[in-house]
Amino acid sequence: MDIAWFDDVDVGYEMVGEYHDVDEQEIIEFARSWDPMPFHVDKAQALNSSYGGLIASGGHNYAIYLKLCHKQRPKLAVIAALTTQDMSFPHPIRPGDRLKLRGVCLSRRESRSKPDRGIVEIRSEVTNQNGVVVLQLTQSIMLAKRGSGHSAVFSMA
Amino acid sequence: MDIAWFDDVDVGYEMVGEYHDVDEQEIIEFARSWDPMPFHVDKAQALNSSYGGLIASGGHNYAIYLKLCHKQRPKLAVIAALTTQDMSFPHPIRPGDRLKLRGVCLSRRESRSKPDRGIVEIRSEVTNQNGVVVLQLTQSIMLAKRGSGHSAVFSMA
Repeated sequence: MDIAWFDDVDVGYEMVGEYHDVDEQEIIEFARSWDPMPFHVDKAQALNSSYGGLIASGGHNYAIYLKLCHKQRPKLAVIAALTTQDMSFPHPIRPGDRLKLRGVCLSRRESRSKPDRGIVEIRSEVTNQNGVVVLQLTQSIMLAKRGSGHSAVFSMA
Repeated sequence: MDIAWFDDVDVGYEMVGEYHDVDEQEIIEFARSWDPMPFHVDKAQALNSSYGGLIASGGHNYAIYLKLCHKQRPKLAVIAALTTQDMSFPHPIRPGDRLKLRGVCLSRRESRSKPDRGIVEIRSEVTNQNGVVVLQLTQSIMLAKRGSGHSAVFSMA
């Protein structure tokens, strides 16, 4: 599998993960488990809400971001996700949306304690089929260096 | 149902949501759908990872935070969740953990455009059964004022 190590991710590095298609059932099921607001789980109440229809939970939105991160090629050599800044959901995700991730590396630094890794700061946006941003966030991610032996992280399909 | 409106949430207001018990199956199922890293979905590989066992996805961690928000009493009169700052997962969630939410209002202001609502900034922590923090975040939340007619938001159990 092709992997982007810390060595490969310079400031300005772009990543793209495409696509996740979301439907009504997925929105309702996620929200029933984790965030049962009426406008996430009940079509009739959602129609009468200020949203005018079902929208996805913010938790679902963040989960879709993670899924789209897994769809990047090459995959990032992630050891751990660190602090997230400025996460917002500027526009709702609705049934039928086709979602896509685009991220760019804002900064990078070596780990202060461990020579086999570094930390990158990635600004990401998820957009829908109309190019409207549905999620924005800036996340610091710890990446393994090439040859560090962190291959177990990437053994998933 | 007892509801905390914008009128009720002063700086220093505390909220508590308890408990969510997490097990191995829930950790694996969430991660299979959204974040299939080996240390989230595969016991054997997780044992050999630096975590020494299965841990929950950050997406699962955020979803549990939302679920615990729903367990608060009184419920907050939430219209929408706005920007999240400083979200981090300082310690892993593991199978068998019993999780609890505690939040405090850091600031509050009236909406600039709509007189029926206001915005509060809540600093929250989710802790495990040993009192160790597994999630921290600061979220701005739009709350309805008492008498604003936003009752439909709260009709869920």
